[in-house]
Amino acid sequence: MKRLNIGLVGYGFMGRTHSNAFLQAPRFFDLPMQPVLKAVAARNEERVRKFAANWGYESYETDWRNLVPRKDIDVIDIASPNDTHHEIAIAAAKAGKMVMCEKPLGRSAKEAQEMVDAVERTGVPNTVWYNYRRVPAVTLIKQLLEEKKFGRIFHYRAGFLQDWTISRDLPQGGEGLWRLDVAVAGSGVTGDLLAHNIDTAMWLNGPIAEVSAMTETFIKQRLHTLTGKVEPVGIDDASACLARFENGSLGLFEATRYARGHKALYTLEINGEHASASWDLHDLHRIQYFDHRDEGRVRGWRNIHVTDGDQPYMKHWWVPGLQIGYEHTFTHQFMEFVHAAAKGASLAPTFRDGLATDRVTDAVLKAAQSRQWEKVQTS
Amino acid sequence: MKRLNIGLVGYGFMGRTHSNAFLQAPRFFDLPMQPVLKAVAARNEERVRKFAANWGYESYETDWRNLVPRKDIDVIDIASPNDTHHEIAIAAAKAGKMVMCEKPLGRSAKEAQEMVDAVERTGVPNTVWYNYRRVPAVTLIKQLLEEKKFGRIFHYRAGFLQDWTISRDLPQGGEGLWRLDVAVAGSGVTGDLLAHNIDTAMWLNGPIAEVSAMTETFIKQRLHTLTGKVEPVGIDDASACLARFENGSLGLFEATRYARGHKALYTLEINGEHASASWDLHDLHRIQYFDHRDEGRVRGWRNIHVTDGDQPYMKHWWVPGLQIGYEHTFTHQFMEFVHAAAKGASLAPTFRDGLATDRVTDAVLKAAQSRQWEKVQTS
Amino acid sequence: MKRLNIGLVGYGFMGRTHSNAFLQAPRFFDLPMQPVLKAVAARNEERVRKFAANWGYESYETDWRNLVPRKDIDVIDIASPNDTHHEIAIAAAKAGKMVMCEKPLGRSAKEAQEMVDAVERTGVPNTVWYNYRRVPAVTLIKQLLEEKKFGRIFHYRAGFLQDWTISRDLPQGGEGLWRLDVAVAGSGVTGDLLAHNIDTAMWLNGPIAEVSAMTETFIKQRLHTLTGKVEPVGIDDASACLARFENGSLGLFEATRYARGHKALYTLEINGEHASASWDLHDLHRIQYFDHRDEGRVRGWRNIHVTDGDQPYMKHWWVPGLQIGYEHTFTHQFMEFVHAAAKGASLAPTFRDGLATDRVTDAVLKAAQSRQWEKVQTS
Amino acid sequence: MKRLNIGLVGYGFMGRTHSNAFLQAPRFFDLPMQPVLKAVAARNEERVRKFAANWGYESYETDWRNLVPRKDIDVIDIASPNDTHHEIAIAAAKAGKMVMCEKPLGRSAKEAQEMVDAVERTGVPNTVWYNYRRVPAVTLIKQLLEEKKFGRIFHYRAGFLQDWTISRDLPQGGEGLWRLDVAVAGSGVTGDLLAHNIDTAMWLNGPIAEVSAMTETFIKQRLHTLTGKVEPVGIDDASACLARFENGSLGLFEATRYARGHKALYTLEINGEHASASWDLHDLHRIQYFDHRDEGRVRGWRNIHVTDGDQPYMKHWWVPGLQIGYEHTFTHQFMEFVHAAAKGASLAPTFRDGLATDRVTDAVLKAAQSRQWEKVQTS
Repeated sequence: MKRLNIGLVGYGFMGRTHSNAFLQAPRFFDLPMQPVLKAVAARNEERVRKFAANWGYESYETDWRNLVPRKDIDVIDIASPNDTHHEIAIAAAKAGKMVMCEKPLGRSAKEAQEMVDAVERTGVPNTVWYNYRRVPAVTLIKQLLEEKKFGRIFHYRAGFLQDWTISRDLPQGGEGLWRLDVAVAGSGVTGDLLAHNIDTAMWLNGPIAEVSAMTETFIKQRLHTLTGKVEPVGIDDASACLARFENGSLGLFEATRYARGHKALYTLEINGEHASASWDLHDLHRIQYFDHRDEGRVRGWRNIHVTDGDQPYMKHWWVPGLQIGYEHTFTHQFMEFVHAAAKGASLAPTFRDGLATDRVTDAVLKAAQSRQWEKVQTS
Repeated sequence: MKRLNIGLVGYGFMGRTHSNAFLQAPRFFDLPMQPVLKAVAARNEERVRKFAANWGYESYETDWRNLVPRKDIDVIDIASPNDTHHEIAIAAAKAGKMVMCEKPLGRSAKEAQEMVDAVERTGVPNTVWYNYRRVPAVTLIKQLLEEKKFGRIFHYRAGFLQDWTISRDLPQGGEGLWRLDVAVAGSGVTGDLLAHNIDTAMWLNGPIAEVSAMTETFIKQRLHTLTGKVEPVGIDDASACLARFENGSLGLFEATRYARGHKALYTLEINGEHASASWDLHDLHRIQYFDHRDEGRVRGWRNIHVTDGDQPYMKHWWVPGLQIGYEHTFTHQFMEFVHAAAKGASLAPTFRDGLATDRVTDAVLKAAQSRQWEKVQTS
Repeated sequence: MKRLNIGLVGYGFMGRTHSNAFLQAPRFFDLPMQPVLKAVAARNEERVRKFAANWGYESYETDWRNLVPRKDIDVIDIASPNDTHHEIAIAAAKAGKMVMCEKPLGRSAKEAQEMVDAVERTGVPNTVWYNYRRVPAVTLIKQLLEEKKFGRIFHYRAGFLQDWTISRDLPQGGEGLWRLDVAVAGSGVTGDLLAHNIDTAMWLNGPIAEVSAMTETFIKQRLHTLTGKVEPVGIDDASACLARFENGSLGLFEATRYARGHKALYTLEINGEHASASWDLHDLHRIQYFDHRDEGRVRGWRNIHVTDGDQPYMKHWWVPGLQIGYEHTFTHQFMEFVHAAAKGASLAPTFRDGLATDRVTDAVLKAAQSRQWEKVQTS
Repeated sequence: MKRLNIGLVGYGFMGRTHSNAFLQAPRFFDLPMQPVLKAVAARNEERVRKFAANWGYESYETDWRNLVPRKDIDVIDIASPNDTHHEIAIAAAKAGKMVMCEKPLGRSAKEAQEMVDAVERTGVPNTVWYNYRRVPAVTLIKQLLEEKKFGRIFHYRAGFLQDWTISRDLPQGGEGLWRLDVAVAGSGVTGDLLAHNIDTAMWLNGPIAEVSAMTETFIKQRLHTLTGKVEPVGIDDASACLARFENGSLGLFEATRYARGHKALYTLEINGEHASASWDLHDLHRIQYFDHRDEGRVRGWRNIHVTDGDQPYMKHWWVPGLQIGYEHTFTHQFMEFVHAAAKGASLAPTFRDGLATDRVTDAVLKAAQSRQWEKVQTS
């Protein structure tokens, strides 16, 4: 079987989820190419060596610039902090490598646009790791929408609520904390969390035309790990917006790291003329589904445990009632990327889809500043 | 309009729920007779006078023996402790009065049998206050069963879990605590709580043929309020049984006052070939309903909020989504009793139905002693 | 005991909930005055006579103008459509009558301001029926906030989701449908549903400073029952806003009658530094409460069944685990109004509180038009 | 690092979960030995070759008798049908191999006793795959019990409800259906499902002293795949029992494959004097925990999402809020087995623990026949 030689950049949280996907996908799915964990690149040699050994990478590099041009690499997977995506992706595309990139694609739509230009110019297969599309329950909602079960859509709402940065003592920057450093992350929860909500929303409900927004930074200054000084916090701690979808439906979105009690509560709900559905990440294998066409007296929200063989992805795993975990979303996306790549195609969400999301998050940040409704850029 | 003159015995918790029902029923439902709160009887004159004033009773008595023969009384409602049911009901029947009686009907099937004999001999309309049949959600399950939505029944399980007697410092006997005094109550949770489970079970799923059971008294002695001495506890604190229904299905029942964290958690579930349903008292306006005939991928337990106008009883109350309280189960039962009484008929659960439940609880207590399966007495 | 003679205007849904409260309050609570259902006024004589008979009103009027000046009336209760509130309340205040008024107070802040002026000029006790403050569970959240359990507040979000106007065939105007007629209602869901969210929000979390909003009318024209013609729909079918509270926290609000599957889903959640709480009307007796000070491994959202005697209002009703219904919120508010009125005082939410809410809903409607953030008027 | 050479028997559902655990454990946990997937044995050569290739086994055998004596094998893992456990385990023990065995250990306590004798005679490390002990949420309950948070235990109840055999058209025996063939399985749901309930129960709450039970076979005959004939069904379709634990608490257990709507609903609840906890497999990452020592008004069942780093096992996986799947229960058990094996020790549940469960299930089956309470054999 043809091999797909993978070069990973980054050994953090996402480096682990991706590596796991590379190893698990061929065990549970038929793939047209055999993934090979060829090399991983990251700066700290001791740690990258250890990471490579743990996950079975054949080799490692301490500079991604050495990884990209390697002849034995087919695909570059970018799992390093946001400020590196732009440069690595463009270099990879120029080197003719396929590219998989963590989200958000760029720190801004401008960066993302250049990345799109690069991959489209060379035509390399690409994808962005908006992994929540591949939760079986979320995919089921997509299928139900495509089957026109909902009728005209009136409302879409989503949130991503966390509480891990409430303490004033948490520093910004450095290992595991770069998400609080605006220079690295680009933005706060808007790019980190709201972007997930937006990507799924547009996948399920189509383009967003315009937004009104507010953002807030509750803790105004924090110790910066790298400088050793207390410095202003540049990221948004919370972000919320009203949105108009192109199909006329109304959107409400909110992301925050200050919602005490919520760990990673990604929720979404869509209300149509005939049916509604909702999902949340803390019970990721369930959807709630309401169908108005059910008999009146026994009409109710159906609590569906998405673990049966006729539901998305699940026949490849265990038996009904036995759930899979968060990490399997990456396994599913990688599995489908291999199928696309084998045909020379990109996999949605592509870089172009990632750009679309960056345009919305840009509009959110702009609207929060301008205190006006802002149109989402379309080209 | 013809009047229905009511004479209530007892001013405790149940005296209040019944009085409220008498007042509320005609406001929300069309009744063929006008209920009149004619008199209430209880021993403590100061308290009974106050109770009568509060609820609008026209008069009061300090001895039920004076109430029963009164010419201006049509129906005797027995809401006094269990050890009084037998004598009052028989006296009322002999006096030609209709009788409503709190559950359990007797402290034993023997007492209940004599009460049945009395009302059947004189043909007076009668009912037993197993109020949970008239929770709209429970009534809905009954309707669905009658419409044959479930197919063959395989399983029925129910429980009634409380935690209010765990403390060793709680005395037995006296005001509000007669339920811990076996001489007054007849039994512990078997007659108080399990009896509710059994009544509903037989209404929904037919007669129970035989049981195996265990009971336990966790706190073996308690201060008796009336004697002032620490005395052995005669009631069962917990009671559980396996049961065979006549239709071949399997039953599991459990009642306890030692399930920490549960206030009054009456739960029931019935599993049939095609459908299943469940309910619990802590969310009394909801049922969970599963219908295997739903399309596979979107099959799930329907969480039905039983508050719409096409659901049992609800068109008489508010609007969809707005729930009613526990006390309205009594309002519903009384409303239906007035309709039955106007035709000279009894209302299910009748005294005969109450006897059937007492026979099952007797069998449970006997099986717990004999350590054998015990047949439920049928005549 | 001193009597409180009540004159009710309106015999619709709210006329029923109020009348029930007048009858129930003295049965379950000690009141300093005895409520008397003196008279009800409404236009249709046959119906008002029947209503008076059903609820025990001593008399009726077919014009509220005859009711207001009656010497035997102490308090005017306005339960008629929104377009009548202004005129009746001002007339009642001028006549020196206490006034209870359904929400929203006015169809606009301008109307409400004049009503406030009227009652404050004559000093008559007054209240607005924002009944959800008196759900025991919601009151418990208020108490926890007052005890400073939450610390600094970061977020507040609330919604009121219904689905009863989705059908195109539903007419606007006329019996039971005046809420769709903008001339009568003043606005659509903004005044009808969002106003409830706003009232509770400001009670729990303080004043709202500014809003950005969007509204939508999904069905643009409907048959008007009164004219017999298809006419433009003037109300908003959906309304959502971003809000800044004066305490710096962020607010998100949404009301709609197009959220398929939701009957009357009023939800609220508040997130503070140390604790969070949420509630929804479909399970009105529960709150979810999270306290970060709990031990880490066993920290979770506490599902609290607000039915114990130490929880707000509940010792007056049944026993733990047994819930009360929607209508009891009116009973609680009326009970507290009688206590206030006995001292010549108004009860929160007063007309002034009702005005504050109307100012927010006015700002919401204005912002939806202006596409700008709008400050909430403060004087 | 020292290697642990594994020889697997069986390539069915459990062969997959075990193989996955062998591969995943070293990626996420530090292990004292390096697992090596040395060989897999199963009868169908084409299928076993494919299975070996998929999971990376270095070799395969078509007869387990060739696998057991291989010098390059350290541990035999038995994942084949129940009727093979006894012979393979004893052969492996005699060959001095460590043994991991799927549950139930034997088809009867007699078989299990001989297996225990075999491993104890040779002293080989052993374990039985009662995997649910290693659900992080279940392990958390165990920790809380060991910390004495519950006080005296009053009640334990558990169930395992499925619905996959309701159809009359389902055959017995053959590929994937041997669980319906009593000769292979030993019993029906008693050994397959109730055994899981019993294992966890005794781990959490100590030994069971005696039981009363009922079993039922709803579908009396089915086509046997191997004989091609309709034959009597020998297994129990449903099984329920009352139990007394040695600590005086009361137990209730039920397993069935006829509970329409439930896929694999393993539930458990334990009620103590001070605290209670419950869990169910359909939401495997949550426990409900009630602590009576919480402040009264805000006392409630804590809904704990067991995904934080201070909760069992979870620091090795992702971040708070992100759950893991069913299969990781095997990963955890295998990880701990490697630690034990490295010291020459067995891992609980050991074969002796597996025997204890078989003794309870034997007593259940016997009681269902004898219609008597049956003592659980203790030696």
